[in-house]
Amino acid sequence: MAEKPVCSQPRSAAEWRSEKPLSRARAGDLALLMGPDRRWQIVRLEPGQSVHTHRGVLAHDDLIGRPWGSQVASHTGQPFLLLTPSLHDLILRLRRTTQIVYPKEAGYILLKMNIGPGSRVVEAGSGSGALTAVLAHAVRPDGRVYSYEVRPEMQQLARRNLERLGLADVVEFKIRDIAEGFDEVNVDALFLDLPNPWDYLEQAHAALVNGGYLGSLLPTANQVTRLLEALESPRWGLVEVEEILLRPYKAVSARFRPEDRMVAHTGFLIFARALLIEESTG
Amino acid sequence: MAEKPVCSQPRSAAEWRSEKPLSRARAGDLALLMGPDRRWQIVRLEPGQSVHTHRGVLAHDDLIGRPWGSQVASHTGQPFLLLTPSLHDLILRLRRTTQIVYPKEAGYILLKMNIGPGSRVVEAGSGSGALTAVLAHAVRPDGRVYSYEVRPEMQQLARRNLERLGLADVVEFKIRDIAEGFDEVNVDALFLDLPNPWDYLEQAHAALVNGGYLGSLLPTANQVTRLLEALESPRWGLVEVEEILLRPYKAVSARFRPEDRMVAHTGFLIFARALLIEESTG
Amino acid sequence: MAEKPVCSQPRSAAEWRSEKPLSRARAGDLALLMGPDRRWQIVRLEPGQSVHTHRGVLAHDDLIGRPWGSQVASHTGQPFLLLTPSLHDLILRLRRTTQIVYPKEAGYILLKMNIGPGSRVVEAGSGSGALTAVLAHAVRPDGRVYSYEVRPEMQQLARRNLERLGLADVVEFKIRDIAEGFDEVNVDALFLDLPNPWDYLEQAHAALVNGGYLGSLLPTANQVTRLLEALESPRWGLVEVEEILLRPYKAVSARFRPEDRMVAHTGFLIFARALLIEESTG
Amino acid sequence: MAEKPVCSQPRSAAEWRSEKPLSRARAGDLALLMGPDRRWQIVRLEPGQSVHTHRGVLAHDDLIGRPWGSQVASHTGQPFLLLTPSLHDLILRLRRTTQIVYPKEAGYILLKMNIGPGSRVVEAGSGSGALTAVLAHAVRPDGRVYSYEVRPEMQQLARRNLERLGLADVVEFKIRDIAEGFDEVNVDALFLDLPNPWDYLEQAHAALVNGGYLGSLLPTANQVTRLLEALESPRWGLVEVEEILLRPYKAVSARFRPEDRMVAHTGFLIFARALLIEESTG
Repeated sequence: MAEKPVCSQPRSAAEWRSEKPLSRARAGDLALLMGPDRRWQIVRLEPGQSVHTHRGVLAHDDLIGRPWGSQVASHTGQPFLLLTPSLHDLILRLRRTTQIVYPKEAGYILLKMNIGPGSRVVEAGSGSGALTAVLAHAVRPDGRVYSYEVRPEMQQLARRNLERLGLADVVEFKIRDIAEGFDEVNVDALFLDLPNPWDYLEQAHAALVNGGYLGSLLPTANQVTRLLEALESPRWGLVEVEEILLRPYKAVSARFRPEDRMVAHTGFLIFARALLIEESTG
Repeated sequence: MAEKPVCSQPRSAAEWRSEKPLSRARAGDLALLMGPDRRWQIVRLEPGQSVHTHRGVLAHDDLIGRPWGSQVASHTGQPFLLLTPSLHDLILRLRRTTQIVYPKEAGYILLKMNIGPGSRVVEAGSGSGALTAVLAHAVRPDGRVYSYEVRPEMQQLARRNLERLGLADVVEFKIRDIAEGFDEVNVDALFLDLPNPWDYLEQAHAALVNGGYLGSLLPTANQVTRLLEALESPRWGLVEVEEILLRPYKAVSARFRPEDRMVAHTGFLIFARALLIEESTG
Repeated sequence: MAEKPVCSQPRSAAEWRSEKPLSRARAGDLALLMGPDRRWQIVRLEPGQSVHTHRGVLAHDDLIGRPWGSQVASHTGQPFLLLTPSLHDLILRLRRTTQIVYPKEAGYILLKMNIGPGSRVVEAGSGSGALTAVLAHAVRPDGRVYSYEVRPEMQQLARRNLERLGLADVVEFKIRDIAEGFDEVNVDALFLDLPNPWDYLEQAHAALVNGGYLGSLLPTANQVTRLLEALESPRWGLVEVEEILLRPYKAVSARFRPEDRMVAHTGFLIFARALLIEESTG
Repeated sequence: MAEKPVCSQPRSAAEWRSEKPLSRARAGDLALLMGPDRRWQIVRLEPGQSVHTHRGVLAHDDLIGRPWGSQVASHTGQPFLLLTPSLHDLILRLRRTTQIVYPKEAGYILLKMNIGPGSRVVEAGSGSGALTAVLAHAVRPDGRVYSYEVRPEMQQLARRNLERLGLADVVEFKIRDIAEGFDEVNVDALFLDLPNPWDYLEQAHAALVNGGYLGSLLPTANQVTRLLEALESPRWGLVEVEEILLRPYKAVSARFRPEDRMVAHTGFLIFARALLIEESTG
């Protein structure tokens, strides 16, 4: 450790540069710009373009080549932070025409349904592609996401969103009324993100590997009770319903407190496992 | 679609077998066994062994070779479900001597800190290895987790837990007082899971790529205000504090309701981004 | 203000006594005793009796005559605090054979249903008398609580609990199947604390003053949707459903944090107002 | 019961009138008017006046004399409900220049601090009078509320609010810097609704009866830890910190679900009991 001195002073970019190459914004990158009012937006950097904000204009050419994590002034002198966006940030700013699965639920779904690198996952419907993006990000590089949607224009949006995020290569989009069933068999996990999942449990069971994971997200208690009724069958087990609440706080050391208002409900998460029926296990 | 008939009847194992090979429990696999009282345990299947439960004994030899998702009777005739455990289940049943990072937080950490296949992540301390496991699972196969711990016996436990889960190959365990700094530079994300993260911000900043993600999980408001104070510096930005609450429900269609009691607090999540200081960005 | 010096030192009982008479425990009083482990119990002080706790025995004769708010030692030398119990404390320790309405809901019900001194309130059923006690306490001295119950032995318990609390004088207990209707008309508020309130809305409407307050508390979402369906009528308006969550914290200045576990659900509160039907208001 | 038939049809005002006198809006009453969009307002009925809403105009003269709970049409034909406002409604619509204590906390405070008919309660400061109103309503007719405030114009607002609610008769308003102490002794309960309650604990202790109830409401964790530190003294006991969360639901039988957004934080409630110090209890 002797050769690596502990930093005891704020490092300037110069010092940083001396010991390691700085990571820089390049043309084509997605960039998150956060202004002094904590408002932020995500843009794709393209030579010759400019970003218009409530606090002034920034030229892309001033951003391209600049190190990530540095501060840039708008034409009115307002300071902006230049950062890579996280998957979390990208999902919150996805172009959308539907309610999306939020990061607070999406991250939990991954762990609960055991989705990771190499998993084969079916999703219906594609919606705006928010969950599709989280699934695609998680199963790379060897896994596969099969995303079904009955409305072509909706899937077109999801597809464009995934392409924009550079995640489309592990996704197969299919236009289909899933009442007709899924093409895949033996998938590890299957997520029904549509208003009437109880109508497609046969099809879901047929696509899942024995013991595989079923998930769904529903906004109303009426929908949950209806799905639970359909899951009260020997073909499904370990049925669980959970809700994830995200409570944001004011991140100020001298006045630390929960925020005044919060998102109080997105939906109920329902999970189950596909079982082999009883007479068959002898 | 003509050649794939839609399932309209519960499929027996026989039918399932006819169209796709059943996935079966093998010696060496980790298996989750859930009894009729919804109590469950995780065992590694080994020929000649047996599992003792409150509802009777099951011989591993009766489980090995059986399809996942099927039902097995204990010697007293009680029905058990045989299932693969998810990462979620495995973490909840990890051997531990410390408080662990729970799945509800771990899944959110992944999205918020942009951790996925290929990420390089530092963690301190290793603890019992719960977060290490989630990180390792997410960054495979090409990413890397560097897990620092000052107490050798603790890291020994984390290492054994990761080996048991088959995730140790992407983790480098290091015994180190991180006051001395981290060996890595330009890591994508760094998580401080220890009681005094404010003491190691210099070291964390030195290890992170410019713009990289810092995370921490702290149980008390006092710790949070102290960390926030240390983060109120031009070297850190986008500081956020959040709390994740998981509300479980009774999954019964005719009596759907929140559970009577819940885990009300595990910790506050703190996130920040590593910045280049102002004078350096010109 | 000159004649009333500001206390700047802790006041001893002697000082306190010099300026104002101390309030003291008397035979017949209900007393709350809190031990060093924060466990507490409520006893009625009777000469010659003694209290047995996990931390030793206290003689009632040692407590009678002692000032409230003082410390008493058990026979093993453990310190106990001697305090008057609040209505909140008394309700939590009520003898009960049923689920009770908790203080977190009861206090809110009072404000939401405009119940205060002088109110005339109907309640069905009596249950163990927890809500009865809160209502009786609030409407004194000139108001009235009419408490209906179909099970005589249950009402006997409620009656004894109210007598023990000295609140029985403003309550009229009635054994009745409320399908037969209530005796009262023009009551200000009516609370249905039973599993099937939708069966008694006619009777409730007949007992309430025009514009009066209906309330109910139900544990399951299924019950709520069924009651809402019955309330979707021109005879009821301003229908609201709310849930009250009480989050307890560790009250330690150096380690302030939410408690690990909490009561996550007691019930959903439903409120409505009794309306005159449309054609009648001309 | 034979003479009181069970209502089986919606009662018209005519039928209602036949068995009991209808309660009617009179000049001088406060009236709540709820329009078809569930927006509501509270007005005092005065002959010759009119109410202007987003859905048309209502003449007070059309409301005066009309039964409560009936429907009235605005000049554009939009239906409005005419109802008596509850204390809950009145508080939410109080004229205010400060953050107020909300009903969800106020109702709980009453039970926790044992405040009811006959109680003598001190409050500082008066603020906009929201808590003052709840206290005054609860202690009538024989109790007393002593409300201290250092800013005359603020107390003027509180006083006017209490007068408007008809609750001023049980309240004594005092302009005072409470650092000088309170005039009262042996009060049952004392509530510190100001940003630095730790500065006034001596004065509060001097005003309370031995064993009396102290309460406070603070927005930030920093304030709570500071108050807890001051309460960690032999003069105070049974210290508790709690938070009340009110979760509203969509009251629609076919789509029952939590509302999308909620008030996530108003403040932390702190309670304690005034003790006699140790050497004094002999």
